[in-house]
Amino acid sequence: MKHAALCKRLGYQFLQPQLLQRALTHRSYSAAHNERLEFLGDSVLNCAIAKYLYDTYPDLPEGDLSRLRSNLVNQQTLAILAQQLNLGEQLLLGEGERKSAGFRRPSILADALEALFGAVLLDAGFMAAEKVVLGLYVPFIVQTDLKTLGKDAKTLLQEHLQSRKLALPQYHVAEIKGEAHAQTFVVTCEIAQLGLVSQGEGTSRRIAEQIAAERAYQQIKETQ
Amino acid sequence: MKHAALCKRLGYQFLQPQLLQRALTHRSYSAAHNERLEFLGDSVLNCAIAKYLYDTYPDLPEGDLSRLRSNLVNQQTLAILAQQLNLGEQLLLGEGERKSAGFRRPSILADALEALFGAVLLDAGFMAAEKVVLGLYVPFIVQTDLKTLGKDAKTLLQEHLQSRKLALPQYHVAEIKGEAHAQTFVVTCEIAQLGLVSQGEGTSRRIAEQIAAERAYQQIKETQ
Repeated sequence: MKHAALCKRLGYQFLQPQLLQRALTHRSYSAAHNERLEFLGDSVLNCAIAKYLYDTYPDLPEGDLSRLRSNLVNQQTLAILAQQLNLGEQLLLGEGERKSAGFRRPSILADALEALFGAVLLDAGFMAAEKVVLGLYVPFIVQTDLKTLGKDAKTLLQEHLQSRKLALPQYHVAEIKGEAHAQTFVVTCEIAQLGLVSQGEGTSRRIAEQIAAERAYQQIKETQ
Repeated sequence: MKHAALCKRLGYQFLQPQLLQRALTHRSYSAAHNERLEFLGDSVLNCAIAKYLYDTYPDLPEGDLSRLRSNLVNQQTLAILAQQLNLGEQLLLGEGERKSAGFRRPSILADALEALFGAVLLDAGFMAAEKVVLGLYVPFIVQTDLKTLGKDAKTLLQEHLQSRKLALPQYHVAEIKGEAHAQTFVVTCEIAQLGLVSQGEGTSRRIAEQIAAERAYQQIKETQ
């Protein structure tokens, strides 16, 4: 079967494989694309995660539950989980999106994963979809520090340095590569008092800074 | 049974009446209040309505489905449905909220109704909660013009007058009653070319204007 590996990783066999096919179809590929399924899947995801958080954290007030959930269902987390599933390889993308590496773009990956959840809901109902959602999310939640979830790497790094009364990191654009419409930014993050310089690359300065900050933060954590 | 009438209107009998009790408890009344249930219920509501709209409108694109849903799950619609259930009478409110007529406040009513949906989810699972949600919403959806849903009365009135090339209505504050902390505004809405004047009362000028516009719009519709 074409999507056997994906179904195995999802822990779910579709009764109606055409739903899976549709969940994997980006609007650039066909009019029979996944956006309506994404709408449905987004709501299943929200509900499954809400129930899980409600049950798992009986003492957390509503505001904290909301904050946790919104950090779990955001594009960034969805894209990470989609990458774990190698979802990008299975996507049906139009030629333009394929050439511009759309199968790696977080928004496309996140949308397709939501569409997958919607497809399972249609295929076998809420409980089946909830099981698929939690099968992916619970391992992620368990290994994630919920206190830091949703804070970006620059914020985490800055808070850590402040807690040690160290000066803030300095970010510099070291290089801009590629043509105007497809540039790659190389940014360094320097923490002089720790003698630490890290580097990040990304399609924008902001992304490159975040990656550099993430690497600096990891290095500090490892040497502590 | 204490809440027999409410349960009958909901079409649902609680296996665990303490969940119903909690859903009806505002934070001003007790620390065992309904806010966590509201968090849960909000997500069930979203999911049940998403599934209903997906199934009912197979040709609507994702953007329209999202817009429809957000207009159905907003505070205004929830408060209307809560009023139909006479939910206000059943709420457990602290003394301050009782004295300031909190049982009529849209936000308190809407939150309690969401909490009720959450309570049904915990009591008997997603399908039971979905059934309660749709039992309330489908009659509302069926009688609502989805094209105008989410547009406020002033907007609808203005669009209607513009389509007939008539001048816009004039709103005037006719009276402000009551003491400073509990004022009631009386606003008139005049459409000179139709010789029509309507009036609205509310706790703010904005609300009074909307009510006056709603009445003018109804009058125009009835005489057409």
